[in-house]
Amino acid sequence: MAKQQRTAVSPTRAEDYPEWYQQVIRAADLAENSPVRGCMVIKPWGYTLWERMQRDLDAKFKATGHVNAYFPLFIPKSYLEKEARHVEGFAKECAVVTHSRLELGEDGKLHPAAPLEEPLIVRPTSETIIGEMYAKWVQSYRDLPILINQWANVVRWEMRTRLFLRTTEFLWQEGHTAHATEAEAWEETRRMLDVYADFAENHMAMPVLRGEKTADERFPGAVSTLCIEAMMQDRKALQAGTSHFLGQNFAKAAGIQFLSAEGQQEYAWTTSWGVSTRLIGGLIMTHGDDDGLVLPPRLAPLHIVILPVAPKEEHRASVFEACDKLAEELGGLAWHGNALEVHVDKRDLRGGEKMWSWVKKGVPLRVEIGPRDLENDAVFVARRDTGEKQSMPRAAFVGEVRERLEAVQSNLLQRARDFRAANSRNIDSLADFKAWFEGDGGGFAWAHWSEEAGPEAEALLRDLKVTVRCVPYTDTAEPGECIFSGKPSKQRVVFAKAY
Amino acid sequence: MAKQQRTAVSPTRAEDYPEWYQQVIRAADLAENSPVRGCMVIKPWGYTLWERMQRDLDAKFKATGHVNAYFPLFIPKSYLEKEARHVEGFAKECAVVTHSRLELGEDGKLHPAAPLEEPLIVRPTSETIIGEMYAKWVQSYRDLPILINQWANVVRWEMRTRLFLRTTEFLWQEGHTAHATEAEAWEETRRMLDVYADFAENHMAMPVLRGEKTADERFPGAVSTLCIEAMMQDRKALQAGTSHFLGQNFAKAAGIQFLSAEGQQEYAWTTSWGVSTRLIGGLIMTHGDDDGLVLPPRLAPLHIVILPVAPKEEHRASVFEACDKLAEELGGLAWHGNALEVHVDKRDLRGGEKMWSWVKKGVPLRVEIGPRDLENDAVFVARRDTGEKQSMPRAAFVGEVRERLEAVQSNLLQRARDFRAANSRNIDSLADFKAWFEGDGGGFAWAHWSEEAGPEAEALLRDLKVTVRCVPYTDTAEPGECIFSGKPSKQRVVFAKAY
Repeated sequence: MAKQQRTAVSPTRAEDYPEWYQQVIRAADLAENSPVRGCMVIKPWGYTLWERMQRDLDAKFKATGHVNAYFPLFIPKSYLEKEARHVEGFAKECAVVTHSRLELGEDGKLHPAAPLEEPLIVRPTSETIIGEMYAKWVQSYRDLPILINQWANVVRWEMRTRLFLRTTEFLWQEGHTAHATEAEAWEETRRMLDVYADFAENHMAMPVLRGEKTADERFPGAVSTLCIEAMMQDRKALQAGTSHFLGQNFAKAAGIQFLSAEGQQEYAWTTSWGVSTRLIGGLIMTHGDDDGLVLPPRLAPLHIVILPVAPKEEHRASVFEACDKLAEELGGLAWHGNALEVHVDKRDLRGGEKMWSWVKKGVPLRVEIGPRDLENDAVFVARRDTGEKQSMPRAAFVGEVRERLEAVQSNLLQRARDFRAANSRNIDSLADFKAWFEGDGGGFAWAHWSEEAGPEAEALLRDLKVTVRCVPYTDTAEPGECIFSGKPSKQRVVFAKAY
Repeated sequence: MAKQQRTAVSPTRAEDYPEWYQQVIRAADLAENSPVRGCMVIKPWGYTLWERMQRDLDAKFKATGHVNAYFPLFIPKSYLEKEARHVEGFAKECAVVTHSRLELGEDGKLHPAAPLEEPLIVRPTSETIIGEMYAKWVQSYRDLPILINQWANVVRWEMRTRLFLRTTEFLWQEGHTAHATEAEAWEETRRMLDVYADFAENHMAMPVLRGEKTADERFPGAVSTLCIEAMMQDRKALQAGTSHFLGQNFAKAAGIQFLSAEGQQEYAWTTSWGVSTRLIGGLIMTHGDDDGLVLPPRLAPLHIVILPVAPKEEHRASVFEACDKLAEELGGLAWHGNALEVHVDKRDLRGGEKMWSWVKKGVPLRVEIGPRDLENDAVFVARRDTGEKQSMPRAAFVGEVRERLEAVQSNLLQRARDFRAANSRNIDSLADFKAWFEGDGGGFAWAHWSEEAGPEAEALLRDLKVTVRCVPYTDTAEPGECIFSGKPSKQRVVFAKAY
């Protein structure tokens, strides 16, 4: 009988990628749909993953001089009306609070009562309400910069939702900063893009392209939107984070003005930047395999799971004790500033069932200890990323465990980089472009393009379901001609199908 | 000229306590009202304080076996309708979402569009939506207990709001657990009350009474509500946390059923428990003085602020360097599992202004270093809680700094305990009761009382604005007679005016 005949998750990626994604989430018990349309329940394993992301991102925000604060969930309707493009972007899909009470009707049901004078919007993003506060706080150039981040829930009334990737309510962080000069605000916008790229690559092990969005894909109201774009295993792009240079647009809408050092009344320059629980979707689709979730060690809720293997009652006590001792020893080791997270699974389950439950949850290292291992002072170690298994001396394992986790982390990043490289190419003709993207084809196409590519190009891209993901930051930019229009192009842009 | 002629906060507590409270919040820059009715903005200093509270509470929740998860912000109206008393408690004051879109009208304004089939309530608390999920997750006794906590924002449409103490939106945690037996659920309810009391006393340095609410003050839908009650410096009580034994009420409403070990279909027993940003109000009113906020070191965003005193340019470099070195050394010390938080304030401000800014923010220890101190290898140290100031050898300060913080922490707790003791008394007659509470009088009155005290007692209590805060857990319970009705009483209960 062939090994690996069955996979822990069905269907496999090759069979049905979207369904595979749902099944990985179920198998790892990360989240599920709630009875409230488009809103998800983030279950403990998924939420702990989010807590790890928060921990590492928050440290990076603080290291770059930011502090956290909290602003209201509700935004008065009139605030949205102040920035025209912003309204256009968000008014179409927002939860509107119109009443402040429910009253029991004659039908025995509750009905909305006490209508509000002005409807409130559940924040889809907080530029307008935060801008209103900054306008009060800022008087002089001495009050700038303001460097504030908020961890919060937001609501966008999405029509088609998908766990983590697109949900009506989601969790995120939104940074909002105000500066005295344009240059300083631009510097902040770029700095936070770099923070996101650093987090994606070095914590999530998810390689990303950094770049600038084209006008069509800009945040509503922004002068420029920078982004990080990752490639999923179905070769589609995932926008994983954005950093917006807002110019003076929101400062003018909210009246954020200050007296400059030269005694002039000026408008501030603002930025905003955010990442969300969508990152969890990106992590699943970057590293997951046909046996379920694969976690990058730096974000894993659990680094090592230890399974006692003691089918005979007579061995139980000594095996359990050895497992506990190993867990204690490992838990005393710090890695990247945090203690290793170790769990001994003593549940009364069949060995296979127990083992697979941790494979599906993606724990980086699995250790098994049985009576024979005790005799030999050995442990059996399995790596989740490669499936590699080996028996080794206990002391050697403890001595090397952090290097081993580092190896898993860098292997995941390298594997994802290789995958992206294998599925990216320069494309120089319209025919090649069509051939590359037709049907289920695709990947990242680096091609020359002009903002004035014309309506035919737009129609073709729409048909292929392809968009310009970004104008990438690259060391090898060179001019060329738009493959659609022949017009001049300063550098290649990246095209892909996208989530 | 007398010292302490002026206070940093005006009015003083004695002059106008409610206004003093607002002014402390302003002086410490903790929070402010937002343009959204009843919603506050929690500013960085206030939010960091909340982060410290979250850190310590979360560790206690995890140490008692709980995990975090996240449930939807919205609750379908029909869920609220399922538990009759619950509806009654929350339907009167809730934000109702009725539309999912805004459309531009001919008047150039946005108007609610796309009405929802069923209105959604912004969660005032999450028993109903979480119960709905638990009903799906629980099949057998093996799925129990479920021990989940959620950190979230909630909304209750309060008519009169006050920063931190009562706001339309507030931040909190809500634990929701489900158990196979009544005894286990009761044990959980009491355990979490003890966790809250431990946190209040040992982290906030805020002494609390633990006890049970009377029927009138119970959480809507609970069988029993346990609470911790603290005394503020105006001698009013603040309910600082609650832990509810919900019996099978919510399990029946949501259908949380399981197959018992004996093969019977049974309803689960549930609990819920929560504390909120209200605790920050309690902290301010327990320790604050006429110079502003006073922080218990264990929750202080900053333990030590270091002020360089170098009016002459020639000393600046050496004094700054000495301050940085001291900060680095102190920052390398751990206290209660976390690194000491130290900040060197190099702002170009007048010495007095700079010093007072930190006094008002409540930082436990202030260190000043000037040229003379450098010569003597000394530091000038001031304690925020006692105002005590002394010059001492630098090495001695570093060696003792953690004991000093411990001393501040225990002094705050002792001072609050003494204050409560001085303002608590046993009361055994109606005349004494009235005299004690009339006008601005009051404190904690321990008196005998019967649930059937009668309408006259109720009217009197209403006039005096006094309520039964709790039936306290006490070692010295002895029976007596209700001071209102003469009916038998098992033990004294605690009366007070309350927030």
